Amino acid sequence: MAAYRLQKRCDEEAVFVVEGPKMAAEAMASEFGIRVVCATEEWLSAHAGNTVAEECFEVSAAELERLSNFKTSNQVWMLVERCTPRRLPQGGMVLALDKIQDPGNMGTMLRTADWFGVRHVVCSHDTVSCYNPKVVQATMGAIFRTEVEYVDLPKWLASCGMPVYGASLQGNPIGDRDGVVTKEGVLLIGNESRGISPEAMAQVTHPVLIPNIGGTAESLNASVAAGILMNYLLWNNYNTKKEEPR
Amino acid sequence: MAAYRLQKRCDEEAVFVVEGPKMAAEAMASEFGIRVVCATEEWLSAHAGNTVAEECFEVSAAELERLSNFKTSNQVWMLVERCTPRRLPQGGMVLALDKIQDPGNMGTMLRTADWFGVRHVVCSHDTVSCYNPKVVQATMGAIFRTEVEYVDLPKWLASCGMPVYGASLQGNPIGDRDGVVTKEGVLLIGNESRGISPEAMAQVTHPVLIPNIGGTAESLNASVAAGILMNYLLWNNYNTKKEEPR
Repeated sequence: MAAYRLQKRCDEEAVFVVEGPKMAAEAMASEFGIRVVCATEEWLSAHAGNTVAEECFEVSAAELERLSNFKTSNQVWMLVERCTPRRLPQGGMVLALDKIQDPGNMGTMLRTADWFGVRHVVCSHDTVSCYNPKVVQATMGAIFRTEVEYVDLPKWLASCGMPVYGASLQGNPIGDRDGVVTKEGVLLIGNESRGISPEAMAQVTHPVLIPNIGGTAESLNASVAAGILMNYLLWNNYNTKKEEPR
Repeated sequence: MAAYRLQKRCDEEAVFVVEGPKMAAEAMASEFGIRVVCATEEWLSAHAGNTVAEECFEVSAAELERLSNFKTSNQVWMLVERCTPRRLPQGGMVLALDKIQDPGNMGTMLRTADWFGVRHVVCSHDTVSCYNPKVVQATMGAIFRTEVEYVDLPKWLASCGMPVYGASLQGNPIGDRDGVVTKEGVLLIGNESRGISPEAMAQVTHPVLIPNIGGTAESLNASVAAGILMNYLLWNNYNTKKEEPR
């Protein structure tokens, strides 16, 4: 099983690693196939009959430690089957990620998308893999509820036929939310240090700006900016929902 | 110098570690005293005359590696003097952190506060130290522009005399921003897994809710929630600024 610490092996077999009781519960509640479970006796006896895995092994805490991608391993380790090919979005809100490198940011953005009901995430080929163990962990389960696809991003943006929102220093400040169209659109988030690449920026139809009220910080963390912009773009959806006749 | 990898030693001497050219530049541009610089020949020759440190050492890449708190060390390592005692806030916007544990979250929240011009951060005593090397790094320089104080948080909230905004499932959805008072107030952010503690929640005067539009995710990342709420509370300030007569 230790071979599955290697991303390459997981890629070849189209599986990904899920660790800890919280994420294991999310996996079991999802429609994803669970190929292998390695867990402590404690976890296994608490979940007798609930684990629909192809193979199930009882392991010691020390063995779990060797399997784990994290400093502290945690009761259960799973190999879960990837859902591919996933569907490319047809309308609705889409999160587009351009060369995101940090697994924590990537996972946090999937988690935020899940919170705001954004089910489709489209990534440039050089964005970190959504099946990276640190990404999976940071999604807090969103990996099981989000469609993630890797594409030629500028090309996809050019042909998606939706408004593309992207943060730009020349953008419109998001202080005033009147007139935001939120029924469908793409929110484009750029690389942590270099921002949106020129090729992707060329496809932005709606440049937006989170006002730098302090005037001293150079930038926001990518996942924080994504959260602020998702909230901005989607609040009308929420208001509309509330006003729908029962 | 390797002893300064220990937080305890840094606490005793009231210093903190700053690493890498970006953060070193922020330190040099700040009013913080720089006690020691250890840097490669390359960095030192590029900054000849600019480093106002009490002591300056040329080190090899291997020596820097041993000093570093990170997997990849980066040209320069500094010991910077803490600014204590710092002032407790008198009005304005204040970020209050209740038992935040993750250094990345803490640093990211300071960075976001800096972006939005929030200069004061008040933390419960059991919040992670703002001088933790991972916090310092994640602030991207905000550590040099933010006043961080550790207090008995429920007691401080009870006596601050300002409205206290806190995320709560019973709060008012932030979709509608009319009537938000933003001239002064406290934004309270709770622990990553347990949220705001009951003692601190008892001091919340304005419970708010980030609408869970998706309906599937359990929660948002603490620093993403903080970003969305800072943007929410402060946008009026930005609009007011724009409208001020010249």
